[in-house]
Amino acid sequence: MTTVVGVIGGGQLARMMVPPAINLGLDIRVLAENEGSSAQIAATQVGDYTDVDTVVSFATDCDVITFDHEHVPAHVLAELISRGIAVHPGPHALQFAQDKLRMRERLAELGIPVPGWMRASEEAHVDAFLQEWGGKAVAKTARGGYDGKGVRVITSAADVSDWLTKLGPGESILLEELVDFRRELSQLIARRPSGEMALWPVVESIQTDGVCSEVIAPAPLSQGKIADMAGSIASQIAAELDVTGVMAVELFETTDDRILVNELAMRPHNSGHWTQDGSTTSQFEQHLRAVLDLPLGATGLTAPHTVMVNILGGPSSGDMLAPYPRAMADHPTVKIHTYGKEPRPGRKVGHVNASGDDLPEVVYQARGAAGFFQV
Amino acid sequence: MTTVVGVIGGGQLARMMVPPAINLGLDIRVLAENEGSSAQIAATQVGDYTDVDTVVSFATDCDVITFDHEHVPAHVLAELISRGIAVHPGPHALQFAQDKLRMRERLAELGIPVPGWMRASEEAHVDAFLQEWGGKAVAKTARGGYDGKGVRVITSAADVSDWLTKLGPGESILLEELVDFRRELSQLIARRPSGEMALWPVVESIQTDGVCSEVIAPAPLSQGKIADMAGSIASQIAAELDVTGVMAVELFETTDDRILVNELAMRPHNSGHWTQDGSTTSQFEQHLRAVLDLPLGATGLTAPHTVMVNILGGPSSGDMLAPYPRAMADHPTVKIHTYGKEPRPGRKVGHVNASGDDLPEVVYQARGAAGFFQV
Repeated sequence: MTTVVGVIGGGQLARMMVPPAINLGLDIRVLAENEGSSAQIAATQVGDYTDVDTVVSFATDCDVITFDHEHVPAHVLAELISRGIAVHPGPHALQFAQDKLRMRERLAELGIPVPGWMRASEEAHVDAFLQEWGGKAVAKTARGGYDGKGVRVITSAADVSDWLTKLGPGESILLEELVDFRRELSQLIARRPSGEMALWPVVESIQTDGVCSEVIAPAPLSQGKIADMAGSIASQIAAELDVTGVMAVELFETTDDRILVNELAMRPHNSGHWTQDGSTTSQFEQHLRAVLDLPLGATGLTAPHTVMVNILGGPSSGDMLAPYPRAMADHPTVKIHTYGKEPRPGRKVGHVNASGDDLPEVVYQARGAAGFFQV
Repeated sequence: MTTVVGVIGGGQLARMMVPPAINLGLDIRVLAENEGSSAQIAATQVGDYTDVDTVVSFATDCDVITFDHEHVPAHVLAELISRGIAVHPGPHALQFAQDKLRMRERLAELGIPVPGWMRASEEAHVDAFLQEWGGKAVAKTARGGYDGKGVRVITSAADVSDWLTKLGPGESILLEELVDFRRELSQLIARRPSGEMALWPVVESIQTDGVCSEVIAPAPLSQGKIADMAGSIASQIAAELDVTGVMAVELFETTDDRILVNELAMRPHNSGHWTQDGSTTSQFEQHLRAVLDLPLGATGLTAPHTVMVNILGGPSSGDMLAPYPRAMADHPTVKIHTYGKEPRPGRKVGHVNASGDDLPEVVYQARGAAGFFQV
């Protein structure tokens, strides 16, 4: 008698679900996009996640289906559900992570604080929005963006004319206020189907060129009002949207002390990798517990401060392990995580977590170790 | 470019090497005894570890070979080494973990404190030893014992006549003083080929019917003299025997305040499972680092106290996961580890780790959660 968790997508998020699955005695299986994926060790099938037959054959022996990414089409998920297969998060929740316009609309309906926004399908809409917001705005494609892709800062309709001309009937792009923010925060939450929720402390997420480069947990100076606002926003979204599993709510802390929702991710998230070494329950273990509707684990800190630094690109030698001797010798307390991916400029190929009592020291250790992988 | 670690044996120790291998981006492969082993997820081959051809074919693509157990015959290991394959720990060290008589002899030569002992191949030897030690002794087969198997408390030569009659030419059994001990301790150490060593704090190991049932880390009242003695014994053994990888030195703390070596295990060990959740570097990660001759990780505590409670036997329903909802709901801070093994009376099928500031509370949490698996 084994409990089988099926994960669609073979990226590093699926990979990092494997260690807690092993610890908990779960049988974890991955439907990977290709051979040699990051989650190779658990890949029992390679195939196209947009193909109904492929996904159904993968899912048939699984007790629950969950995801490495949010790109599985709704009709594929509907087919799984019609066959009685448990899918978490479900498509009714996932649609808001898949489509930024739906997300903005739904959050606005719920009264959740969001940046000023507008749906645009022609240049006149863009011109009007730019005029309203002082000539500068952020434009986003509704679907398919990640890590800064599908996002542009614009000053004229011409900046998005290529996106607009490609829109199908009924489709739009999202225009957003260019928020004057002090910093970016991320609130991680887990929710199980029976309703139990667990929050980790809100963290500060530092972006470089649109990609997360560092996370500081907990976010400095976040106790009290900011933590309360972030936690209650995430709890409200998780409950109202019936989110199951882990969700990351990316937030702006504005210069005038408001908290606005930037993005949602309904899966373990880069801003939660610190939990692997800094919290009693990691986001990957919690996600497994949540999608199996098991009681959630404690989300307390194992050290006052944990800092995560992403390894972007990786060593130019192409050998991810070549820096280990020096990084480990100089930084014996850090935890190095690499994803079994080929180094390539800008690619997320690993991260380093460091924990301790003294934040500057923790930052130094994490950056120092990660630095060896980026020369 | 990947670094490949090959593990001979598919038990729970091999299984628990997989999570840190994934974190470190290593390719871990297991030669398992049979299908459906505890280390199934990493098993790339099933075969007989006493068969040279099987082991050679498994080892050929590996950067290093290490072990789930100590039973691989010396001639098989010699063949690997003659082919230039790195084997850690090497056979020159492993022989002392494989043969208790050799171990006793070598430790005595090194001046390491051990219980009174004698080599016995006939009943007269047993009679003489019993007379010397007050009519009671411990008898052990030189090879193949584990978890209380191959160990007997004896009061007459008749108690071991079956073992004596089965001895081959030149073979003996080991007789030992029945040590009047206050408690059992275990000192875990790691050593890499280039000589670097790392000690974890000495722990108290509680045995029930000859099998480890609980471990308290660090051992209460062990600071100072006891920790120093345990650490220096383990360091001396590791260096003198050229041990590579993790070694557990099981110790008696006698009622007259001496520390005597009971057993050696040259691999990760049950008395070190607490490190998975209670130390910056787990014994499984450290073992991988050590056998790859990478710098060792820090062995500091992540909490003042960690207690491990073994799950022996498992639920009578046969479903290891059936107790999860209650165990997790009542004990959200504990870490549950199960091994993917069928429950069977007395079998080690999992363990629970709990950590915290207050030892009685930590003991309560660990026993409480483990208790759900033993009803």
